[in-house]
Amino acid sequence: TGRELVVIPGDGIGREVVPAAVRVLHALCPETRVVEADAGWDCFQATGTSVPEATLDLVRQAGAALFGAVSSPSYPVKGYKSAILTLRRALGLYANVRPVRAAVDLQPPRAIDLVVVRENTEGLYVGRELRAGDQAVAERVITREASLRIGRIAARLALQHPSRKLTVVHKANVVPLSDGLFRDSVREAVNAVDENQVLQVDELLVDYAALKLVQQPEAFGVLVAPNLYGDILSDLAAHWCGGLGAAPSINLGDVHALAEPVHGSAPDIAGRGRANPAAAMLSLALLLRGHWGMREEADLLEDAVAFALRSVGGDAGTEVITTAVIEALGRV
Amino acid sequence: TGRELVVIPGDGIGREVVPAAVRVLHALCPETRVVEADAGWDCFQATGTSVPEATLDLVRQAGAALFGAVSSPSYPVKGYKSAILTLRRALGLYANVRPVRAAVDLQPPRAIDLVVVRENTEGLYVGRELRAGDQAVAERVITREASLRIGRIAARLALQHPSRKLTVVHKANVVPLSDGLFRDSVREAVNAVDENQVLQVDELLVDYAALKLVQQPEAFGVLVAPNLYGDILSDLAAHWCGGLGAAPSINLGDVHALAEPVHGSAPDIAGRGRANPAAAMLSLALLLRGHWGMREEADLLEDAVAFALRSVGGDAGTEVITTAVIEALGRV
Ligand SMILES: CC(C)[C@H](C(=O)O)[C@@H](O)C(=O)O
Ligand SMILES: CC(C)[C@H](C(=O)O)[C@@H](O)C(=O)O
Repeated sequence: TGRELVVIPGDGIGREVVPAAVRVLHALCPETRVVEADAGWDCFQATGTSVPEATLDLVRQAGAALFGAVSSPSYPVKGYKSAILTLRRALGLYANVRPVRAAVDLQPPRAIDLVVVRENTEGLYVGRELRAGDQAVAERVITREASLRIGRIAARLALQHPSRKLTVVHKANVVPLSDGLFRDSVREAVNAVDENQVLQVDELLVDYAALKLVQQPEAFGVLVAPNLYGDILSDLAAHWCGGLGAAPSINLGDVHALAEPVHGSAPDIAGRGRANPAAAMLSLALLLRGHWGMREEADLLEDAVAFALRSVGGDAGTEVITTAVIEALGRV
Repeated sequence: TGRELVVIPGDGIGREVVPAAVRVLHALCPETRVVEADAGWDCFQATGTSVPEATLDLVRQAGAALFGAVSSPSYPVKGYKSAILTLRRALGLYANVRPVRAAVDLQPPRAIDLVVVRENTEGLYVGRELRAGDQAVAERVITREASLRIGRIAARLALQHPSRKLTVVHKANVVPLSDGLFRDSVREAVNAVDENQVLQVDELLVDYAALKLVQQPEAFGVLVAPNLYGDILSDLAAHWCGGLGAAPSINLGDVHALAEPVHGSAPDIAGRGRANPAAAMLSLALLLRGHWGMREEADLLEDAVAFALRSVGGDAGTEVITTAVIEALGRV
């Protein structure tokens, strides 16, 4: 079928979970061609850039990628830019979709099934920052265009979601012009997509949304939020799916898609075979469903990961979990 | 003793919880003089300003205030400014201290005792926002001075905290100049205050801090964060003390102090006697301890509120809870 996937392991445990996910992909769809590409902090130290042009070209050709994780220095380094931010921006991946379903071993079991849709290109992430003496100013940019397009994606996802609920997250009581523009543009896009007014749309201040995600996660369907709010809310919501080890995401644009586990490169446990590859595999499932239209395979993969985690546990180590997932795939 | 308290009920349930807290204060310290002042949305509609100069003058004279809650329009209104933001700024209340202790009825019981120290004057809250056509830009300002002074307060609180732990929250991987300045200035201030290096200081990215506050709240002592991060983190941490109905805070400056329940004006339940006054009373306890140096009375009040909530429950209604607190005060 000519299906091709670029894998970008990156740094740290990215190099463990991505190969694990590739093994599972080959068990599921043997015909997918997999090409490896470089990015990240080690890549920056070796080549002077955190995302080589060759990597971008490979993804542009293949259209689909799986990203592992990258490390970032905790202090500014001249010439260095975060690889994941560069990839999102250069590839036009304007939406970051992070579904959270209740973990299989959540006690007591809870009916949590929500999706955080995060605007992925602007807000505080535009890199417009200045320091003058003892003052630093960062610009937070919101545009109508980016808000409309994230609103459209969120509305489409909400229409497919069993809850038919959409919550617009903002802080317009503090930044009325920018978050007001976000809120109003999202609502406009939602009204255009949801012609028959099927959706139940509401809005929530980001501080209260954070609390409600802890207190009543069952109440949510799809949430749509500016970049940083989406970052924070999706991380905390990951608690419900079993923590970052099991939290998948996919970065979507109009053309390309890049699957990305929410966790980082975890240098503290890297290289010891201890990383949980579930998030990378579940991110791949999002790619199968959302980008390649392979719904059945995606469902199969998600079921196999859930089955494997239930039988061996999330701390069983990369190899044990991967083998368990592949076995589970053979069984269903 | 000449102790004076300005009370600013504001809008909605602010007008129910503040009088309830005043009754309790009179039971505890009958000699405190209480003066009422106006602020908020109704005040704006009646007078054209959300915080009259007379209110500011009263607080400046008394030095201490209890604020209830105010409503804000969800769309920009010409000339209107949020009353609480105006009060914080005009009175130099640069720190917002929000302690979270595990609720008495938390099941299973957990050893949670943390404090969010929120920078209260800058970040995204400076009101520097512009809209031009389809783009809006908000400035997020971080200064060395404000970061140093919040770092000093946080370090002092951490030295008094049983954990001796301090976590600096930032997002310097995305906004290196501004959050880097925050982080570095806070660390500098902490080193100066903590001469003998008693504190265990670490740092955490805001997204991960949010998750960890859900997963392992016991791991925290004092957290210090820029304005909006502190807003979000303290709201979600309020889950552990029983939700916003029981979450107190105090705004501190070098001279004045303003106690403020974390909850809003809750127009949906206002006027029906259903509001839980615990947060307002617990905020008063913070004022007794932190501003008037009345440790014993503060402990007494906190114990009485915990006792009352345990016996009648947080949904018992304003009158029932208030009576229960006053009875409990008499008993201890
Ligand atoms: C590594 C960092 C730049 C990134 C972000 O903030 O977007 C990460 O937290 C994420 O959520 O993918
Ligand atoms: C009402 C709003 C402006 C305020 C804030 O964001 O500071 C509130 O959320 C708070 O936490 O006191």
